[in-house]
Amino acid sequence: MAQQVRNKQVILRDYVSGFPKESDMIIVDNTITLKLPEGSNDVLLKNLYLSCDPYMRNLMNKPQGIPNPLSYSPQSVIAGFGVSKVLESGHPDYKEGDLVWGFCKWEEYRLVPSSQILFKVEHTDVPLSYYTGILAASGAVGQLVGQFAKLTGCYVVGSAGSKDKIDLLKNKFGFDEGFNYKEEPDLNAALKRYFPEGIDIYFENVGGKTLDAVLLNMRVHGRIPACGMISQYNLTQPEGVTNLAHLVYKRIRMEGFNSADFFPIYPKFLEFVLPHIREGKIVYVEDIAEGLENGPAALVGLFSGRNVGKQVLVVARE
Amino acid sequence: MAQQVRNKQVILRDYVSGFPKESDMIIVDNTITLKLPEGSNDVLLKNLYLSCDPYMRNLMNKPQGIPNPLSYSPQSVIAGFGVSKVLESGHPDYKEGDLVWGFCKWEEYRLVPSSQILFKVEHTDVPLSYYTGILAASGAVGQLVGQFAKLTGCYVVGSAGSKDKIDLLKNKFGFDEGFNYKEEPDLNAALKRYFPEGIDIYFENVGGKTLDAVLLNMRVHGRIPACGMISQYNLTQPEGVTNLAHLVYKRIRMEGFNSADFFPIYPKFLEFVLPHIREGKIVYVEDIAEGLENGPAALVGLFSGRNVGKQVLVVARE
Repeated sequence: MAQQVRNKQVILRDYVSGFPKESDMIIVDNTITLKLPEGSNDVLLKNLYLSCDPYMRNLMNKPQGIPNPLSYSPQSVIAGFGVSKVLESGHPDYKEGDLVWGFCKWEEYRLVPSSQILFKVEHTDVPLSYYTGILAASGAVGQLVGQFAKLTGCYVVGSAGSKDKIDLLKNKFGFDEGFNYKEEPDLNAALKRYFPEGIDIYFENVGGKTLDAVLLNMRVHGRIPACGMISQYNLTQPEGVTNLAHLVYKRIRMEGFNSADFFPIYPKFLEFVLPHIREGKIVYVEDIAEGLENGPAALVGLFSGRNVGKQVLVVARE
Repeated sequence: MAQQVRNKQVILRDYVSGFPKESDMIIVDNTITLKLPEGSNDVLLKNLYLSCDPYMRNLMNKPQGIPNPLSYSPQSVIAGFGVSKVLESGHPDYKEGDLVWGFCKWEEYRLVPSSQILFKVEHTDVPLSYYTGILAASGAVGQLVGQFAKLTGCYVVGSAGSKDKIDLLKNKFGFDEGFNYKEEPDLNAALKRYFPEGIDIYFENVGGKTLDAVLLNMRVHGRIPACGMISQYNLTQPEGVTNLAHLVYKRIRMEGFNSADFFPIYPKFLEFVLPHIREGKIVYVEDIAEGLENGPAALVGLFSGRNVGKQVLVVARE
């Protein structure tokens, strides 16, 4: 007889509008058979570490226009990046005991169809949880972008929401400067203070009023790689950005990107980043929550800035 | 004795806020000596054709932040692109009778310091006025962008503000489709109608609500070259663009540009465009106003869409 075990899951109650609450998600105890059917090509996984990322908020919206294929449905299990261990595999590329990362439902165990892409964890001399963040090019990117920029010789200024975070930016990550955006009555003035000659590169993760102030302070031919706009995700009506004409006046390039588009060059990224981690040249801070039942609070906390560093949720350690 | 002649000029009365009016500009009769001082390296020009372009509205604003070096000052002569004839030259690169184009004050004659860049008109088998527009890569670009796009095999839809203009787009310029944005209660729906599979390239010249609707309808990895945002130039408070997060979701590149950045490759552009003009493969429509005294009306008319095609102001024909 196949073994039936509890499979705890995090379910989206209904589409979310505005700021997400813990109660928008429900913890349920389901069951799963820990045995693949005869002849299956699927892979049976035990989930270990889950990544909590701001973009997941967008997947909770009622779809409008062209739906995102990753969007959550009400009464279904939510998902994000995660690290898992292979319990059983009908797929020739994976075998029992392999560690993998990829898009992962928030549950204790899961059955993955053979068509889904899983990345093998090849290097286990660094913490396994890193494959939810720095080694998956996902989440809490600000701390890393600033450090990568310092490695290439940039002058780096970070914006964060508390004194402790600013201390972290300056003293642990080695940023040149940092300011608490919550204590700046005039963001334009703050940016002028730190960039009297203007900004060459703004790593966009915030949107809204911050972007508007940045546009005023960009230099000619400046660049804005756009990774996210966390300030907008919980607004039913997004703030309008009024200074976009500066893209024209100053011939600025603004370009959205998504780590998934760069998966083909993931091995090159690992080649670059692993030595920096091993030699301690990159500092990577994680904020660890324990247990699937604490997932909703960890996820919601991202939007009040409660987390310090990458928010990870531990489902099981092995 | 050097010849003193009348030099009619168009003067900005004061900084402009909101929609520009003819009365924001004044016509004055000044005088000029049509003779270079002994030993001067300057160039004395007679202005022939002046270009009326929407960006000139921005130069009328009271400067804020980093001032644009081209900005107009109250009680000074306004300026834009223009075509002129050399009357006398102390500069070795120019001689009497040469035709040149470049940034040009709105007056009948002008003395140009030897440091200012002037482009020589080398090809006179096409109308001289074209050097204010299609051959200066300036103004009324929509008609040309659409035709260039058709030459490269694109499906082209134009947006314009009257039935006559839509007819022009479709029947004279060969656009596939066109719609009157003034008669579309829902721009998002209009775009969905013409681009059921989404937009690959949006040539941005409008901004505001149009850009917002476009962002909703862009395809993944779409591109938005941003040339101008005419809908915003007369607003004291620009409209907010609310759908910018789609730059991230759909990994869109939006990039401002300015023809001046591309002057080094101007000869290549001429090589491309001149044969198309000579062979009639590019249609270029001009709207000609006569006389410097009609300049303010021609310039102001751009913002109500009164012009059909490139608005040119004739100061003198030779």
